[in-house]
Order: sequence, then structure tokens, then C-alpha cells
Amino acid sequence: MAAGRAPILTPRGDDFPRWYQDVLNKAELADNGPVRGTMVIRPYAYAIWERMVAEVDARIKAAGAENAYFPLFIPESYFQREAEHVEGFSPELAVVTVGGGKELEEPVVVRPTSETVIGEYMAKWVQSYRDLPLLLNQWANVVRWELRPRVFLRTSEFLWQEGHTAHATEDDAREYAEHILHSVYRDFMVEVLAIPVLVGAKIAQERFAGATNTLTCEAMMGDGKALQMGTSHELGQNFARAFDVGFLDEHGEQRICWTTSWGVSTRMMGGLIMAHGDDAGLRVPPRLAAVQAVVLVVRDEDGSVTAAAGELVDSLGRAGVRARLDARVETGFGRRATEWELKGVPLRIEVGPRDLAEGQVVVARRDDGAKVPVPVAELAARAPGLLEEVQAAMLADATERRDALTTVVDSVEEAAEVSATGFAVLPWRLLDDAAIDLLGRSAVTVRCLQTPDGELPGGAPADELVAVCARSY
Amino acid sequence: MAAGRAPILTPRGDDFPRWYQDVLNKAELADNGPVRGTMVIRPYAYAIWERMVAEVDARIKAAGAENAYFPLFIPESYFQREAEHVEGFSPELAVVTVGGGKELEEPVVVRPTSETVIGEYMAKWVQSYRDLPLLLNQWANVVRWELRPRVFLRTSEFLWQEGHTAHATEDDAREYAEHILHSVYRDFMVEVLAIPVLVGAKIAQERFAGATNTLTCEAMMGDGKALQMGTSHELGQNFARAFDVGFLDEHGEQRICWTTSWGVSTRMMGGLIMAHGDDAGLRVPPRLAAVQAVVLVVRDEDGSVTAAAGELVDSLGRAGVRARLDARVETGFGRRATEWELKGVPLRIEVGPRDLAEGQVVVARRDDGAKVPVPVAELAARAPGLLEEVQAAMLADATERRDALTTVVDSVEEAAEVSATGFAVLPWRLLDDAAIDLLGRSAVTVRCLQTPDGELPGGAPADELVAVCARSY
Repeated sequence: MAAGRAPILTPRGDDFPRWYQDVLNKAELADNGPVRGTMVIRPYAYAIWERMVAEVDARIKAAGAENAYFPLFIPESYFQREAEHVEGFSPELAVVTVGGGKELEEPVVVRPTSETVIGEYMAKWVQSYRDLPLLLNQWANVVRWELRPRVFLRTSEFLWQEGHTAHATEDDAREYAEHILHSVYRDFMVEVLAIPVLVGAKIAQERFAGATNTLTCEAMMGDGKALQMGTSHELGQNFARAFDVGFLDEHGEQRICWTTSWGVSTRMMGGLIMAHGDDAGLRVPPRLAAVQAVVLVVRDEDGSVTAAAGELVDSLGRAGVRARLDARVETGFGRRATEWELKGVPLRIEVGPRDLAEGQVVVARRDDGAKVPVPVAELAARAPGLLEEVQAAMLADATERRDALTTVVDSVEEAAEVSATGFAVLPWRLLDDAAIDLLGRSAVTVRCLQTPDGELPGGAPADELVAVCARSY
Repeated sequence: MAAGRAPILTPRGDDFPRWYQDVLNKAELADNGPVRGTMVIRPYAYAIWERMVAEVDARIKAAGAENAYFPLFIPESYFQREAEHVEGFSPELAVVTVGGGKELEEPVVVRPTSETVIGEYMAKWVQSYRDLPLLLNQWANVVRWELRPRVFLRTSEFLWQEGHTAHATEDDAREYAEHILHSVYRDFMVEVLAIPVLVGAKIAQERFAGATNTLTCEAMMGDGKALQMGTSHELGQNFARAFDVGFLDEHGEQRICWTTSWGVSTRMMGGLIMAHGDDAGLRVPPRLAAVQAVVLVVRDEDGSVTAAAGELVDSLGRAGVRARLDARVETGFGRRATEWELKGVPLRIEVGPRDLAEGQVVVARRDDGAKVPVPVAELAARAPGLLEEVQAAMLADATERRDALTTVVDSVEEAAEVSATGFAVLPWRLLDDAAIDLLGRSAVTVRCLQTPDGELPGGAPADELVAVCARSY
């Protein structure tokens, strides 16, 4: 940011929630919708979401699941069939009572999640063990009425993918739920988002409504609070029984399936902002960025700089870099540089008449602010490597910050204290109901259980597990 | 289809609507949803829809529009602001009256289209002529309550893209609406779907509710009925006035924008089925197909055929062909061949032990049923060219069928007669209100107005235009 100017954003240290809101507005990411709790995702943010979708979708397909689409509207009666599910979701439902000008005979629910309706179709499509596993996914909008909405983090409508699978055995279902958590979610979050998420299992009280086991990816935000970035659920036979999803096994016996569900959402956009943002705005990791490099014409008297900058954009494109030209010379250079800084574009390539005369451009890294001159002739060849350097630096940086905010403790009192500003890791056996209540009074929850070396609990004995506690979004 | 077996599908000539329903079921394309009028899009059909999205999206981006996302829920009051719009859409609205367990103070409408809510945000984002044109698009689900639903063609919920743009002048808006119709919609439909659509303008009675001009792409189906495949609307200043979308022009004068909107939807899936399907099932044009070639292991004693077939799939993939392996040798070859025929995969590559011994495979074209032996070593090199041949043949075939079903007439009586089974083209000046009523009694409507050489009316005098009439979906 140019010296001497008033900060464009509220500094994070002053008021983190307000900084977050400022980033949403000033970087033109999102607005509140007219109906309470809904949001408008603006083009720059939506392009980042499209990149998230592409990267997650490729991993889902590699995991063997196929995309499909199920209806937005679900008969209210479907929710009654799984007792915990209806109890968990009833307070959040939006209900359509009028259609085509008439009161409906049976009200329909706007899907908050699709286990029920997909269960109904799984029952039709699965007959034999040969039809298993059935691996489905859908990209869709869902609605959960929010009383305390916050854009991207908790909205009444959000965009997500929801995977739904049916398996012949409990082991198959467990293995697949874990595979999704590791190979789709954690891999995407670490490798693309550059966010070093923890993995673990939720405690019973924090499970998805109707699940027998909920696995989670938990990230550390810039203010020391945790964010649940994605979950993968074993649903046991709860939904399969409720919707009669069964199959004839190899021996001709009729059996009930084991199902899973798993999802990540536009909430990850909030995680991106809060994990990587700084007082100058958003910072987008290069592998995620829809715009990886902006070529900025500093000034131009005769069109020659713009022409040269345009050629640079083309040559970057040929080198596989997602580059964009900013030749809006009628707007001051400083203002535009600040705008791209706000938007977190990884590389800002500044091209002015003097630079060109010297056969070079100035490359500014968004992650650490470093500026280096690069010969014009070398730019396209060097940019991909530089972007990978930025990617690695951002992950290293986020990992260091998370580790600095993580404290291993051996009492509930210490856990309550350090959880105010980060992750507290303590032996799970210390957390009886009274201890969980105590933490709850400081708005601290158990984010997940894991083995001491950070793996999923799997079959490990409960008294060997650690609980990771934090305040959270 | 194997000789002597009962047909899997009702023949088109016997009962076209039933044939359509049979294709949906037997090719595993889609099911009815549990709430009347909704649909479930199954993986094979959804993969085709994803290809439609990718191809249309690339053209939209090339036209300069950016994707964004606006809320599903729109306050009921927004619809009141544009008189024709509310009148047109009121009978089709789904209304949420309960949210989070409580009666809502203002009911919210589930979007049937988003001109209103997007108008609200355009008003915030557009200030100066420098902000124009504002070119937005969103991929979303919309809801229009349907009394006579039919999967893909008329469903209470469907998937679509809706483009919304704001311009400084009427000419700019008109030019952009026409550009979308030609360069996005017609180009995609002709070049990718292999459907030779007609372009033209709707008559006033058939315009989108709130539009000043509706441009359309109209296709001919296998039963002689027309299908509206996509529309692009000039909205004049109707929505801009209602939502106060204005700007300061170059001279500092406050002015009102001119807006457009345009969309294509999952209805195109219905068009694909009905334009190209035959009595053996779907036929998917290669450029659209999610699976362009299936490599079918005829039988395999020792795994060697499957291994060779797998290598063929890999080599086809390297040649840019979207290929899939079918090595389910426990299922009869005939049954599997019929399945891929039903699904309309353009090339079926049959590999058996004897073929391999002879160093060849048999390539069966879905479009015309031709089977030719191809040396294994040449397959990957020849497949892309063969796919382009199939693509061209399908377009030529569809064009020939459409032309055979198009009759130029010079009286309303003749138009009523030939419209029963195809397009009637007659001078627009013959169609006064009484004539349109007469046609209406045979369920014939004016699909579009165009110049005699098939172009958009543009500024051509009304008495030089022709009206294309047909029965339609």
C-alpha cells in the first residue's frame, strides 16, 4: 500500500470481522442478497469458485464418482423417515407452500442436503451386488435458514458439492469416506488452497444429523479461530434402512447397503480469505487463482507500452499462465496496483516506458511484496516457476502460522486458555462431559479427534487419541 | 438391434411421446422427481449436459461476459416492479412462506428467472458510462411451476444459464442480443449439437414477459414438431427503469441503461434426443459426446483382450478422443452393444480374440450403422477424423430432414395443413389476428419471423418478412 494513505481496509488486528467485510466489499467479492442470509457472488470471486469446482471435480471423478442432478424440492415427508436427520434439519428448513398460484397439498422443502431424495433413487437403481458401489456426486445450491448469516461462512443459500455413495459393506463405506477426505479434500486444500488442514473425526455431539461417523478437515484462520472446511460422513445403514436401499449379494441373500455422504461448499471462499488475507487484502495461491498474473501498463504515451504488454500477456498464456492485461492508463497506476493487491493476484507485472527501454519489467509478488526486475525475454519462461515458488511459500507461511497457533496442553484449564487464540491439543481422555461444558462456556469446541501424529482415529483406542480444540466459525 | 428380438423402444412411428419416454428410461438418462414436474438427471445424461455447459460457457466467455451468482430467493415485491413481467410469471411461481420454522414476513419467490434481482445489483454496480457494457451470466437452477410437465422439455425445475447485460444505447443492446444468438447459441447448436436451427424474432404475443424483442433459435424434431432451443431478449429500458439502472454519460448527463437477457437450458437435452434419436435410441454427435468411443471387449478367455482393449482406450485418449472401456465380459456382448447403441455413443469399437489375432478391430458407427475393420495400429490416428465425419454426417442428415419437413406456402390454409408435420413458411403480411387464431385451433404457432433468406428481421420492412409456423413443444 502506498505510504501515507489511509488504509483501505480495517486492519485485521483492530477488528477482524470488519476487515473480512471490507475485503468482501473492496475486492468486489460478494454482496449480501436482498433476502436475509443470501449472497451475491461477484465475477472475480465466482471465477475463483469456478477454479475450486474444477479442481475438486477432477479429484472426485478420479475417485470414481459420477455427477448427476437431483431436484431442489423434496417432499416434507421424506425428512420424517430418518429420526436424527429430521431433528437436526427441521429448524433450518425453507418450505414452499404455494406453487402455480395454489396452496400445495403437501408442502415441499427446499433441499438443505440431499440424502433423503438420493436415497429414494438409490433404492431404485441398486438391485444386486454388481450395482455396488454406487458413487454419485452433485454440484448444487442448498438452503439452510440462517439466523446469524455471514457471507461465504454461513449463508441461507450456498453452493456446494454433495457426494452420496452406497456400498456392500461397512468397511467399503468407511474406506471410501476416508478416501474422499484424504484424496479429494485434504489434497485439494493443501495442494491448491495452500491451507494446511488438520484431519480428524468429530465427537458424537458434533456429527452430521444421521451420521455414525463424521470426518472433517479443519483449518486455522488469521484470527486464531478454526474453520471446518469440509466433511465426509459414514451414514451406517441409517438412510439405507429408511429408504430401503438394499441388494442381493453373491449368495442370493437380500442385504442392506452402507452409505456415505460428503461435501465442500462456498464456505471455502471464506476460508481462503481468512487464512491467507492480510491488511492489504486477499492473497490467492497461484494454483487456485483465476488470474495468476496481471500485466499492468504503468503509463503509455503512444500505445507502444500497451502493445508490448499485450504481447507479454499472450506469451504468458502460451506458457500456461492465466494472465490478464490492465491497460486502463486513464486510471492512476497506484490505484490500479492497489486494486490488484486487494484482489490478491499472485504476480503483478509492471510495464512502463522506461522499463521497456531497458528491456525489462518489474515483477511484484503479492505473497511477500518482493519486487524484482526480469528481462522481457525471460518473463514467460520464468513465470511458471515463480508461481510455484509463491504457491510453496504461501503453504509454508500458513503452516508456520498454524503451528505457532497450536499448543499441546495436558489440562482442560490450559486448553480453555490457549483455545481463545488457536488450536489446543490435549488427550481426549481428559474431556468428559463436564470438561466439554467448561470449554463451551468460552465458545470452545472439540474440532476433531485424531491420533497423536495427526491421522484419522481409524481403529485406534480412544485413550490414545488427542482432541483438537478451538473457537470456530 | 439383434434380429428377432422385440424392440426395446416403442418405434417412433407408433407413438413418438412414448418412444421419448422409453429413451429416457432405457438409456438411463432421467427419471421423474418425487415432486410433480421435477426431474432427476442421471450420470450419463448429466455428463452430456456438462459438455453442453463447457461448450456454451466458452462461447459466453468469448463474448466477454463474466459468470457470477445471484440468490435463488427473490423478494415477492421485486416482481411487482415490472408490470408485464409479473403478469407473465405469477401463474408459475413457487413461493416460500416458511423459513427456519417461522412464517416469513414477506414471502420469497424461488427464481423463475433473475432479471429483477440482477437489475437491483446492476443499479449498484453501474455508475458511469465507463462501467458499461456490464456483461453478466449465471449458471443456475430455476423454478416455473408446470401443469403438464415432460422431462427435459417442460419441468418445474430446470438448469440453465441466464445472461444479463446493461448497455449505454439501444443499438449496443440490440447488437449484443444478436451476437449472443448467433455466436453463442446458433454456433453451438449447429457446430456441436449438429442441429440446424432457424433464427428469427418472436411475434409480440410470444415474447418474453417484459421484453421489447425476443430472438429465438428454433429446431425441427423427429416428429415434425418444433422446439424452441434458446432465446435472446432485448429488454429495452423496462427493467432498467423499474430497478433504476442508470449511468452518467460522457457529457455528465444521467441516463437510463438498455438491458438484455438470454438463456439456454436442459431443454436442449430434450432437443438432442428428439432431433437425433432413432428407433434404436439416442444418437449423440461426437463433438458433444462425453463418451465418443466405447471399446467393447467381445469376449476374453485369459485377460489378453481386455489388456489390449485398455491400451486402445489409452491411445485413443492420447489422440484426444474421449474413450471408455467396456470389459464386462460376464454380460453378453449383444446386450452390451445394444446398451451403447441406446446411449448413442458415436463409435463402438469391438475387440475380440479373433480380431486381435488379425491385428484389427471392428469400428461401428452409431449414426448410420456402418461397420468397418480398422488395423489396430491405425485406430488412434484415424478415430478423430472418423468422429468429424460422423459429426458432419449427422448435421447433413438433420438438415436434410428439416428441409424435407419445410414447405413454402402462400396461404394460411396451406400453412395450417403443412404445419401439422413440419415448418410452414409464408409471407408474414398474410397473418392477421384472425389467421393466427385459425392456426391456433390446430395448435400451430408462429415460431419466428425472419427475412426470406433466413436471417434475423433486423430493420427489414415487415411486409418483406416470412413467418415460420409449426406445432411445437
